Amino acid sequence: MGLLIVGTVALDSVETPFGKADRVLGGSGTFASFAASFFSVPKLVGVVGEDFPESYLELLRSRAVDTAGVVKEKGKTFYWAGKYETDVNVRTTLTTELNVLQTFNPVIPEKFRDSSYLFLANIDPKLQLKVLDQCSGLKFTVMDTMNYWIENTREALDRVLGRVDAVLLNDEEARMLTGTPVLQKAADSILKSFPSMKIVIIKKGEHGAMMFSREGFFALPGYPLDVVKDPTGAGDSFAGGFIGWISRADSTDEVTLRQAVAAGSATASFCCEDFSVDRFRTLDSSELKRRAASIRNCTEFASLDW
Amino acid sequence: MGLLIVGTVALDSVETPFGKADRVLGGSGTFASFAASFFSVPKLVGVVGEDFPESYLELLRSRAVDTAGVVKEKGKTFYWAGKYETDVNVRTTLTTELNVLQTFNPVIPEKFRDSSYLFLANIDPKLQLKVLDQCSGLKFTVMDTMNYWIENTREALDRVLGRVDAVLLNDEEARMLTGTPVLQKAADSILKSFPSMKIVIIKKGEHGAMMFSREGFFALPGYPLDVVKDPTGAGDSFAGGFIGWISRADSTDEVTLRQAVAAGSATASFCCEDFSVDRFRTLDSSELKRRAASIRNCTEFASLDW
Repeated sequence: MGLLIVGTVALDSVETPFGKADRVLGGSGTFASFAASFFSVPKLVGVVGEDFPESYLELLRSRAVDTAGVVKEKGKTFYWAGKYETDVNVRTTLTTELNVLQTFNPVIPEKFRDSSYLFLANIDPKLQLKVLDQCSGLKFTVMDTMNYWIENTREALDRVLGRVDAVLLNDEEARMLTGTPVLQKAADSILKSFPSMKIVIIKKGEHGAMMFSREGFFALPGYPLDVVKDPTGAGDSFAGGFIGWISRADSTDEVTLRQAVAAGSATASFCCEDFSVDRFRTLDSSELKRRAASIRNCTEFASLDW
Repeated sequence: MGLLIVGTVALDSVETPFGKADRVLGGSGTFASFAASFFSVPKLVGVVGEDFPESYLELLRSRAVDTAGVVKEKGKTFYWAGKYETDVNVRTTLTTELNVLQTFNPVIPEKFRDSSYLFLANIDPKLQLKVLDQCSGLKFTVMDTMNYWIENTREALDRVLGRVDAVLLNDEEARMLTGTPVLQKAADSILKSFPSMKIVIIKKGEHGAMMFSREGFFALPGYPLDVVKDPTGAGDSFAGGFIGWISRADSTDEVTLRQAVAAGSATASFCCEDFSVDRFRTLDSSELKRRAASIRNCTEFASLDW
């Protein structure tokens, strides 16, 4: 039932209409681990630099995230700076400094290699392949990617896609990957091209998420938030909640997968309420349960009969 | 229980990646009436010109739409020409010729004036006010509008908003109307500014619909369509299905309103499958029921308990 997450651990500087945060804890691996920690005990593999505050690693450990796989290398931590407009769907990247991520070679600690569940957060597909090569006994693997890899390392990306069970994409990426604008067809195309792929999840930010499988279709609308202070990490939080739920249930049947999407949505909805992982620091299970129940309630309607 | 719809009856020329349609039946009143006709017997008020084919009126009557309020004036019918890109969310208006719509003065036939339910499709707010002035005994009124009226006739628009029970907006219009990008806050702001407003529905095209009321929130994700030949009229079809269901149920309790959103979504999902109202011509109730059941099924998930 072990859950392994491989992704970035970063320092982010974020500016939104609600304020600024300078060199706060960020990274896909970070957000996914925090989110997953509400349901499971994630093991995180990543790389940081000498400038990475020990207190940030402590923060992860305080959520019972196993950070034995987070190595500290000479040099600086991966750094990202971005700015969101009044319409927080509009984001500009101001700086991306790969730093130690440039030469990251993910080594999965021996004790993590028999994990049953794996989330390959958005990193170079060649590194995602290296991770897959080091694991044995995986029951279900989820990957994330981004337009940069789709455009520049398509061959390696296709090899990863051929070895995972689920892929997370936003609608732009789904269209870019398949060349078709209709999302249903894009998902069908991916399932057809990659026979071992079971699930395509299209994350649509404020518009919710859609899960396509060979059995059918499931979707949740976006949950309307009163406060959107910083959307950074919402997608990775969704992923973490999703794989965290699956890991906890130790199942990937249809019932569990649908619950997993709901778990991901509920968790991600809190991420946006504050900068970095700050909202997760005060979030407790009962709030998360209430959010999941609200999400369930907000799509219920009586059968139409006439 | 009578349902009155006041909107445009138009000739549309549409080009999409799937083909072209020249001077086909269109208009907000048309689409809304067709959609509503699956649940109720709508009475339509609108204006056409001398060039309007009688066969198009026959088409409406074949769906048992009462066209006694559609007047024929000297001049040409309202004409719209548009083009959709490969991404059908991108639409360009090539031509808008108001023609007889320029001098449209909606006169509600005597026998329609005691209708219980009214849909004021997207027309000049000053005309929407004229319609409201002619009706008595209305139980529930829904209005639609567009960015043009929000920008140019705000005072009249506010007067209509102050007299209706529900307003339909897309997300861009909701933001424009209230000056706030967060949709939850935009809806709250509208409900606060207009005390008799009960419902704000934000239509999000392929991303579904959200219904905000003073009681809470309901949303449905977009239904993934295999075929999107022509999205023209989808929003108006949603409105027609919505008010059609309400009229049939003769109720606006929470259960009925949620069903109405589902009825609107189901109906609108068929509209896109062909040009003009052509898909509605072959659509029967059993298909519509299956679609509504699919929509219900695609958001269901078991309670999260842990």
